[in-house]
Amino acid sequence: MIIAVVRENFPGEQRVALIPASLAPLQKAGAEIIVETGAGVAAGFLDADYEAAGAKIVSSRADAFAQSDIVFQVRCLGANPEAGRDDLELVKPGQILVGGCDPLGNPAAIAEMAGKQTTQFALELIPRITRAQSMDILSSQATISGYRAVLIAAIELPKIFPMLMTAAGTLKPAKVFVIGAGVAGLQAIATAKRLGAVVLGYDVRKEAQEQIESLGGKAVDFHLESSGAQDKGGYAKDLGEDFYKKQREFMADTVRECDVVITTAAIPGKKSPLLVTTDAVNGMRPGSVLVDLAAERGGNIEPSQPDTRIEHNGVLILGPTNLAAEVPQHASQMFSSNITKFLLNMVKEKELAIDPADEIIASTMVARDGEVVHNRIREMLGLA
Amino acid sequence: MIIAVVRENFPGEQRVALIPASLAPLQKAGAEIIVETGAGVAAGFLDADYEAAGAKIVSSRADAFAQSDIVFQVRCLGANPEAGRDDLELVKPGQILVGGCDPLGNPAAIAEMAGKQTTQFALELIPRITRAQSMDILSSQATISGYRAVLIAAIELPKIFPMLMTAAGTLKPAKVFVIGAGVAGLQAIATAKRLGAVVLGYDVRKEAQEQIESLGGKAVDFHLESSGAQDKGGYAKDLGEDFYKKQREFMADTVRECDVVITTAAIPGKKSPLLVTTDAVNGMRPGSVLVDLAAERGGNIEPSQPDTRIEHNGVLILGPTNLAAEVPQHASQMFSSNITKFLLNMVKEKELAIDPADEIIASTMVARDGEVVHNRIREMLGLA
Repeated sequence: MIIAVVRENFPGEQRVALIPASLAPLQKAGAEIIVETGAGVAAGFLDADYEAAGAKIVSSRADAFAQSDIVFQVRCLGANPEAGRDDLELVKPGQILVGGCDPLGNPAAIAEMAGKQTTQFALELIPRITRAQSMDILSSQATISGYRAVLIAAIELPKIFPMLMTAAGTLKPAKVFVIGAGVAGLQAIATAKRLGAVVLGYDVRKEAQEQIESLGGKAVDFHLESSGAQDKGGYAKDLGEDFYKKQREFMADTVRECDVVITTAAIPGKKSPLLVTTDAVNGMRPGSVLVDLAAERGGNIEPSQPDTRIEHNGVLILGPTNLAAEVPQHASQMFSSNITKFLLNMVKEKELAIDPADEIIASTMVARDGEVVHNRIREMLGLA
Repeated sequence: MIIAVVRENFPGEQRVALIPASLAPLQKAGAEIIVETGAGVAAGFLDADYEAAGAKIVSSRADAFAQSDIVFQVRCLGANPEAGRDDLELVKPGQILVGGCDPLGNPAAIAEMAGKQTTQFALELIPRITRAQSMDILSSQATISGYRAVLIAAIELPKIFPMLMTAAGTLKPAKVFVIGAGVAGLQAIATAKRLGAVVLGYDVRKEAQEQIESLGGKAVDFHLESSGAQDKGGYAKDLGEDFYKKQREFMADTVRECDVVITTAAIPGKKSPLLVTTDAVNGMRPGSVLVDLAAERGGNIEPSQPDTRIEHNGVLILGPTNLAAEVPQHASQMFSSNITKFLLNMVKEKELAIDPADEIIASTMVARDGEVVHNRIREMLGLA
């Protein structure tokens, strides 16, 4: 069982799928690890660090694919649709690809890669069950994104976050509104609170209000009927346009009095709900900053655009789509821990044992031996 | 008594010397205020805000100088040596200039502007006495710089600051070392601590150790003899090259184990002591970040350069020289409070009353009616 770690080639991607500290548990389980030269450099892990941990360094991506049974990537083809196409020429029949691959956003890529007789595991589809928590890349990377979203807002704001009472007068604390209290939202609330801001939080799921308050945020309640807002996986569900329209009207009043708004309401595989309209943005003071973490799929903030810096009447709107990659060392550490635990779950007595009856395996295996096998992906591709 | 507020024209300077909220106390003291159009825009204060507070907007810098008795600036000529030269053609004999003007760094500019028969007050020279605390621009702006230094380090670091215990393992907190525990240093310590880092602090003044600890930092003590390290104004004094050499050797050991180093050891009017050598930087891990707040005058970190991003063996070294301007709203609020209190100290019964026997006035008045009158500046100019 030889696992290859390749250098990520998506633009701006600085993470690496496996860090040296994760080698030991994999080796103990019978794996050998080969690493494409420079794979970890952008995240702060040198070839020498991998070698010291017992990896073999190979000089090219082609060698990494050619010499391995399993390839670990942060971004497989689906999540790296341009540069990732090179891999179509490098994969071998029977090769196993494990990583992020945006299966719900780009199911065609799953099919295309399957056509090369591969088996693919999409780590975005890790089920939200206790046993799989340690493998959940969406959660681990969202933790980093939520932290980072606050930092980039703080850097842009013409004010400081904490209240300060000084000889030159009192500086009022910044007011930060975090919309969506999933993992990213909660980490944003925690970080803004740490930095000294007054923090408001909102989520359609009533269950989230307690979590917001436990971090020192104030849970905003618009008294809208939103029962059933949480699906069985704990994610927010789509509640319909009528609900969102009312929500937006209430939202505008809160947004107006804030210095920073961070939105994190993404729904896996769907267009993100519009939460903050252009009108609401128009009500904000010049110098205010909005960060839309859902910008990749339509966005929660009307004027936001993916990875574009927009100045709208003196208000700054950012729509970063790959924030975790900007904190590559810690993000990679967590990703590496996730992917390692995931693989170890498929190893029995030092051999790979892919058991389709295992819920974690069944949920994440999108292709096997050349065939798309995941029901939801098959439906999206019109194969069901 | 007509006070003009002009638009700052130093590159990157976004602050404004007076904000609308400060107009009322000045008006009550008998002042009229005129504002060059757009003077506050970069800091978030619109012409309309000034008008609502009772200011008259004038359409040009020339008008602002022509129609006023007193001109408020964040950066007068000495602190704005290129664009500031325009003002030499705009000032009127007898005009009073109040603001930052880098008198110890650029005494020639004081003399040149004095040649236009002006009276100049350099706010950097506010004495460190209780009565003048509220006028101290070095303190107020250093508060902002210290906060900002931590943010720019946090944005660059490939790790997050806080310790996190997650399902994907434990992320260790970042380790931040702040050298120099004056106002900027203490605010840096407070901010890094807020964000969740492990924070070390160092200052040659033993008196500062308690302050470092009171903010949750760990005071590093190299057990070097540094009695008399504090001058009567509370600033760090120059202790001689032999002392600094020993200090640097001890320092390197601490620097090596840190993710972020922020240096703030500037000595007014002198070259900054070298504290972190290139050798010490070489001992740091790739991805580490250093911020040298003393870069403008030689720097505390050997490889630092003013306002230049330097990558040295994978370690990033920043030397920002005008951080307060990057948080222009709050920095302006504090500057405005300082300059307002300063002026009010010179007003008696709604008339300007410049009393050279007043310690605050004597300490800051660098030129009067065309003559350089400050002893230290006269010495530097060879006039004493």
